[in-house]
Amino acid sequence: MSGSSSQVYRASTTAPVNIAVIKYWGKRDTTLNLPTNSSLSVTLSQKSLRTHTTASCSESFSGPDTLILNGEKEDIQSSKRTQACLKHLRSLREQLEAKDESLPKLSKLTLRIVSSNNFPTAAGLASSAAGFAALVRAIADLYELPQTPQELSLIARQGSGSACRSLMGGYVAWRAGTKADGSDSIAEEVAPVSHWPEMRALVLVVSAEKKGVPSTAGMQTTVETSTLAPTRFNEVVPKRMAEIEKAIHDRDFETFARITMQDSNSFHAICLDSWPPIHYLNDVSRAAMSAVETANRKAGKLIAAYTFDAGPNAVIYYLEEHTHQVAGVFKSILPRIPGWEGEFGEVIRPNEYGSLDSKALMTLKAGISRVICTGVGGGPEKIEKHLVDENGNAVPVEA
Amino acid sequence: MSGSSSQVYRASTTAPVNIAVIKYWGKRDTTLNLPTNSSLSVTLSQKSLRTHTTASCSESFSGPDTLILNGEKEDIQSSKRTQACLKHLRSLREQLEAKDESLPKLSKLTLRIVSSNNFPTAAGLASSAAGFAALVRAIADLYELPQTPQELSLIARQGSGSACRSLMGGYVAWRAGTKADGSDSIAEEVAPVSHWPEMRALVLVVSAEKKGVPSTAGMQTTVETSTLAPTRFNEVVPKRMAEIEKAIHDRDFETFARITMQDSNSFHAICLDSWPPIHYLNDVSRAAMSAVETANRKAGKLIAAYTFDAGPNAVIYYLEEHTHQVAGVFKSILPRIPGWEGEFGEVIRPNEYGSLDSKALMTLKAGISRVICTGVGGGPEKIEKHLVDENGNAVPVEA
Repeated sequence: MSGSSSQVYRASTTAPVNIAVIKYWGKRDTTLNLPTNSSLSVTLSQKSLRTHTTASCSESFSGPDTLILNGEKEDIQSSKRTQACLKHLRSLREQLEAKDESLPKLSKLTLRIVSSNNFPTAAGLASSAAGFAALVRAIADLYELPQTPQELSLIARQGSGSACRSLMGGYVAWRAGTKADGSDSIAEEVAPVSHWPEMRALVLVVSAEKKGVPSTAGMQTTVETSTLAPTRFNEVVPKRMAEIEKAIHDRDFETFARITMQDSNSFHAICLDSWPPIHYLNDVSRAAMSAVETANRKAGKLIAAYTFDAGPNAVIYYLEEHTHQVAGVFKSILPRIPGWEGEFGEVIRPNEYGSLDSKALMTLKAGISRVICTGVGGGPEKIEKHLVDENGNAVPVEA
Repeated sequence: MSGSSSQVYRASTTAPVNIAVIKYWGKRDTTLNLPTNSSLSVTLSQKSLRTHTTASCSESFSGPDTLILNGEKEDIQSSKRTQACLKHLRSLREQLEAKDESLPKLSKLTLRIVSSNNFPTAAGLASSAAGFAALVRAIADLYELPQTPQELSLIARQGSGSACRSLMGGYVAWRAGTKADGSDSIAEEVAPVSHWPEMRALVLVVSAEKKGVPSTAGMQTTVETSTLAPTRFNEVVPKRMAEIEKAIHDRDFETFARITMQDSNSFHAICLDSWPPIHYLNDVSRAAMSAVETANRKAGKLIAAYTFDAGPNAVIYYLEEHTHQVAGVFKSILPRIPGWEGEFGEVIRPNEYGSLDSKALMTLKAGISRVICTGVGGGPEKIEKHLVDENGNAVPVEA
């Protein structure tokens, strides 16, 4: 119990997960998290996946800054990435305080940050993007910083590269930039949710797979050893970025789908071309790819697009109008696993899976442990539900 | 029965399988089988794997040329590749006959070719290389052609690209060449068996896997769609060819092993980068890679090298002195599957598998159906055992 009567300043936000369709894989500067190539993602609905973070500070708090994540205290003192974010945000607050003497000197106060995800870590989804986006957004709100999401994205990027894309909703590009200090390596909105709100995403969570190579280490291995990676960084991705931005602008799902799948494959190709080679896709992932290919073949056009991050889980993008033909197939194959509930899932009716071969079918049935039904969504939202109470204590985690 | 008393001319040869360490994947000319890049292989011992072919001709034979493979008649009339080989060999014989009137006019006679492999098709090993090498060598002997193996390799290449490398023993390069007519796209010996006879190869045959994309079709998909492939063809492979030739010259197994594994991974990377993507590696293949990595880690240096062709089977190269540390590990994991008999297999003593993780272990136990224990070997050999009898009839296939 912190029994002080000093005021506790609080700000809370929720921030979304994003799943890239043009992949970020490779840093040109590991300290600043500057990427070897631009990337582009779809922000996912916070109804399904979000991090909720409260940032608080008070004269009554003492000692170092703390972060409690999902009820457990994190070691943020030794996390250079978190420290870089906090330092940057404090310096922006200091600038405000220097300009306006009347402002409370929040920049001098100890921070207590409490954060919780609405999805299980077991889902195997990279939660660092939502986590750092929420952290930066909550502290920026606490400090009443005037910076735009684009300007804040530069800070979140230093926490976790892909976090910069979670500061905005809809369709978001992270421009690699060319400057050594990273000042032009920022996220920007390509299109808001309202431009193309029909985009859906079905996440297939692959059962207990041994954790693969961590992405930071994997990226460096690729940058240092893959002989094919420079072509991807310098030639392939710049071309695809232009193409997929146009596809999003034109709401051209077929082009969007083809580039999404090709870019996922290109990313996993340079992983395999690394030394030692890095594997994230397994036979379950390939069965999911096969099911998507079967659905597309049956439709006679591209109505579904798979993409895979640094793990075997599949994310399948499709448009609302093809819910039955895409998500319905997986609901029919995997009717009894958790995740078919909620706004995006309940509308899905099971559908026959067509000519999917029996081996792929068996592999999916045995290998997928849950689904998450979601779709494109908005950026971080300021909320009044705080995870730190008026006395500065962390609110107990909900059961 | 062909009851004619005309002379039956016969020549028989055996030809080896070869497994590339720098992969051939991509044609710059599909008719002439001209490759996008040079490649390099190890010729494997014919004690383990060989094609035995008898070429015969006689005035008593009539009708079109025939080929019986493993007791079954093949349709060679509609095989443009086989026809190209036969036409080329006949024209060389015609040139001899034109120069020397006393020679029998064999070029005008119907060919009866009979061929048999000493390994089951179920082994999933590309037998076309040994098959076309034996076909070309046997007919060249029947026709008493003066051409060198290098010159004949140009003909075998038109049957099956990699067949050109099976006309020689030891370590063989196929030079891509640059000429449009393919006259400089030929195989040549990099080093004979005697230069480095200690090279061994363990083939792990993966159980009944659905046949993947056929290599000719797959190669064209890669050439037409992979955005990473040109870098492999034009930059990566030429550099690796020079490096691995030096490693072979220096008998430097560590460099040989690293390049072999990297090049296999590079080939499968451009397959994955193709559209639609092509998968040959599966979870069993990856478990084999993992076992090789574990053996190398335990040894503190590279003593084993995996390589994969257009299928999930692993071929693992190692030196005789490391038999116990490499092949012994697999014998210990897979003691009861067929293939541990014979000259190369019997010397292998089971060895503990070290820190190989239990999932990889289970995957190998469940996924490997047989092994083939072999090593580097010599080129085609002329033999007196004929598969066509004196009357021109095919000798029944041995039980």
